[in-house]
Amino acid sequence: MEARRNDLSMRSSRANPLNAAAYARRNQARFVAELQEFVRFRSISALPRYATDVRRCALWLANHLRRIGLPEVRVIDTRRHPLVFARSKWVDGSPTVLVYGHYDVQPVDPMAEWRTPPFEPSVRGDYLYGRGASDDKGQLFAHLKALEAYLCTRQQTPLNVKYLFEGEEEAGSPNLVEFLRTRHRSLRADAVVVSDMPIPRPDQPAITYSMRGGLSLEVEVTGPARDLHSGIFGGAVHNPLQALCELIARLHDGSGRVAVPGFYAGVRRWGDAERMYLAENGATDREMIRQAQVQAGWGEPGFTLYERTTTRPALTVNGISGGYRGPGTKAVIPSRASAKVSFRLVPDQDPAEIERNVRDFIARFAPPAVRVAVRTQFSAEPVLIDRGQPAIGAAMAAYRAGFGAEPVFTRLGGTIPVIGTIQRIFDVPIVLMGFALPDDGMHGPNERFHLPTFFKGISASIWLLAKLAATLSSQSTLGSKNSTRLASL
Amino acid sequence: MEARRNDLSMRSSRANPLNAAAYARRNQARFVAELQEFVRFRSISALPRYATDVRRCALWLANHLRRIGLPEVRVIDTRRHPLVFARSKWVDGSPTVLVYGHYDVQPVDPMAEWRTPPFEPSVRGDYLYGRGASDDKGQLFAHLKALEAYLCTRQQTPLNVKYLFEGEEEAGSPNLVEFLRTRHRSLRADAVVVSDMPIPRPDQPAITYSMRGGLSLEVEVTGPARDLHSGIFGGAVHNPLQALCELIARLHDGSGRVAVPGFYAGVRRWGDAERMYLAENGATDREMIRQAQVQAGWGEPGFTLYERTTTRPALTVNGISGGYRGPGTKAVIPSRASAKVSFRLVPDQDPAEIERNVRDFIARFAPPAVRVAVRTQFSAEPVLIDRGQPAIGAAMAAYRAGFGAEPVFTRLGGTIPVIGTIQRIFDVPIVLMGFALPDDGMHGPNERFHLPTFFKGISASIWLLAKLAATLSSQSTLGSKNSTRLASL
Repeated sequence: MEARRNDLSMRSSRANPLNAAAYARRNQARFVAELQEFVRFRSISALPRYATDVRRCALWLANHLRRIGLPEVRVIDTRRHPLVFARSKWVDGSPTVLVYGHYDVQPVDPMAEWRTPPFEPSVRGDYLYGRGASDDKGQLFAHLKALEAYLCTRQQTPLNVKYLFEGEEEAGSPNLVEFLRTRHRSLRADAVVVSDMPIPRPDQPAITYSMRGGLSLEVEVTGPARDLHSGIFGGAVHNPLQALCELIARLHDGSGRVAVPGFYAGVRRWGDAERMYLAENGATDREMIRQAQVQAGWGEPGFTLYERTTTRPALTVNGISGGYRGPGTKAVIPSRASAKVSFRLVPDQDPAEIERNVRDFIARFAPPAVRVAVRTQFSAEPVLIDRGQPAIGAAMAAYRAGFGAEPVFTRLGGTIPVIGTIQRIFDVPIVLMGFALPDDGMHGPNERFHLPTFFKGISASIWLLAKLAATLSSQSTLGSKNSTRLASL
Repeated sequence: MEARRNDLSMRSSRANPLNAAAYARRNQARFVAELQEFVRFRSISALPRYATDVRRCALWLANHLRRIGLPEVRVIDTRRHPLVFARSKWVDGSPTVLVYGHYDVQPVDPMAEWRTPPFEPSVRGDYLYGRGASDDKGQLFAHLKALEAYLCTRQQTPLNVKYLFEGEEEAGSPNLVEFLRTRHRSLRADAVVVSDMPIPRPDQPAITYSMRGGLSLEVEVTGPARDLHSGIFGGAVHNPLQALCELIARLHDGSGRVAVPGFYAGVRRWGDAERMYLAENGATDREMIRQAQVQAGWGEPGFTLYERTTTRPALTVNGISGGYRGPGTKAVIPSRASAKVSFRLVPDQDPAEIERNVRDFIARFAPPAVRVAVRTQFSAEPVLIDRGQPAIGAAMAAYRAGFGAEPVFTRLGGTIPVIGTIQRIFDVPIVLMGFALPDDGMHGPNERFHLPTFFKGISASIWLLAKLAATLSSQSTLGSKNSTRLASL
């Protein structure tokens, strides 16, 4: 942190993004080294055996926030993984921005496919490789480094900044949603900023204006009390794994549409103007196929691949467990089998209604010779953001300054579970401003973060604070009612 | 081995089953202790990491055969796990029996369900618990102890005995089948005895006269080059796990029959007399349901549960692997998924023809957006044995003497892969004489062996050697042609 102390002599009384950006450029190498430290923590929220690593990561992050110079930093315990909350030095009357991110990461399997260990981050070419490098440690870190650049080049930040970083995003944010419902006053802000999504290319920044919601279920089928010899009982005892496959197969029709009755009933139909915009600004089928590294696309007829992943809902089997999976053979009828199944939902689908429909559908087709149980892991509402809000304009200006390119608007197929709740409770502008790339390998092996985009992200975040300060100070600090609930289409 | 040495003083010149049986009764405790040693080896043939344990088990077994007093014992290397071959002191002109068994065992998962560790055999009540205690270490051990009882109470065995124990039965016997094809002369015998199957109850011995054949396939579906984020790509990329489930679901029709065209074409239809015999002597539906610990039966309409597992073919999904199976959720489209699928086949189904039909069927329904590969793990012909042969009569007499009960004839749903090959190559009587029980938990957790049945099995084997000596010596030592190929029905 030598560089920072030297720069303290340069303090001035007014926020100057140019000074901050220059500081950030001078400190790029250190920022990467610090991010590597951050990525080193095995903060896998889904797996209970990593609970201590998740906590250590939270403590490291809190400590880092203190070192940057934030006067108020708290690690808030929940029923599972802690939240990290921080506030810049408070200035009454200034507008407030809340930056949300998550320091937890996805599990790392299949381990064998990682070329370097997931928690030994390494720089190769323009990329930092490691689990969480892109999703979301690297992206949230860009915002910390932007604030650090202000704090280390002048005394005052352009506006009040609150940070809320959680450790359960990849597990559906169960405790943060609860926390927001009961203790949201301390988190009040005039805008919310989130960077946890890809932009189309390094030279094409993008504001995300919609995200799919989610519904994650586990379907478990149980049969015999213990695994049976499939020679001795095969043909006379129903096989939970076969029954599970038959249930899973029923969930789609032959054309690739979800076959659960009523599933598409609530799906909003978009007009030609919006579909045209998506065709012009979203990924082409060819780009999607290349990014996914597949031979061909698949899915619901009548829509582009980009539409299928953004304006259309989808159902994915994320994993199946049952019977023998080692080498060779094992002649068993397994006593149980289970599948992890997740839906991505769009406006105006109601996750609770979809859940009821799916449960009814599975109950209807559950064969009598086995028992079928459905457990809900989490659900999250879809999000749609008004592109015409001043805060969005500020973010576009920040992208222009940071990336030197005009941003486009994109839709995200993914889900940040808490954003729907934030939108409903806070009713303030939400800025979804990604620094990831489509081929970062989020959730897969060899996840990586594009460092030139990281640096541009820091710069964009520096400009965002300045632009938001100018925009929000001219508005009510209570936020404009209804501005985020309806899209300006 | 103290008891044995003392008994050597009782040598007489003629085989006396009563003396041998008395010796066996006096040594029961030691026999159980020795079997525990045998069960302690982790001889899991399917898992490459246990290859050394499989070999150690073979060496222990060979050494044990030497200690019993067999003059010729060989450990024969194959491409994978060794064979153990042994011969009693040779008497020209005496008939020869070949006892086949296997010292390898099934994998042990699900590990969590074992009440005591699978390779720390323990006696609780009347049972010895441990992987392989019943299948097949305990059953083959009964034959060794029977021969030991002769060798330690007189000099000469009632007839020449050859032992052939393999270490790959649970992996489909790939190398033994090959060995038999090329080097079967050294294994020639006038009858083959195998104990690797259950009898209905401890007081109800049974000769098995049919076994189902097998065909084990692995179906692998591959899609994207790496696991994808199911939010970002869900709906636009086909999911190998979903495609696999849909393929698996197609393999059965709604009634529980296998839907592969031509699958039932070769299945032999049995007349009323045979079906009546099965109904009277096989397990009832209620018994099958109790043994399997299920709520209800399942499967092909028009047949009893016992018929479904013996005279009817079946298809079982033994395991599926794909995607995330840890706790919580992981939002991925897995890049690959695979299923282990095994068929049980009956006369006169041809495994090679079934394999072609299944491959055609899968190829026909493989969706274009993924790649589907089918690999054959092993195949084995079904076996049917003439109940009217003198060797079978000798086995019935041996059961009467050893168990004090009249044996019945039963069919086995399981497969001993090498028996079909032995039947075809050697064309001699095959005696399938089980000492296991239906609730031994073969292939499942908490496998156990019923020790009173073990002791009765030793006694039955003692009598079998005597009865076979009498029966076979009156026949040609070349065996009677065609006696095993056609059932006397």
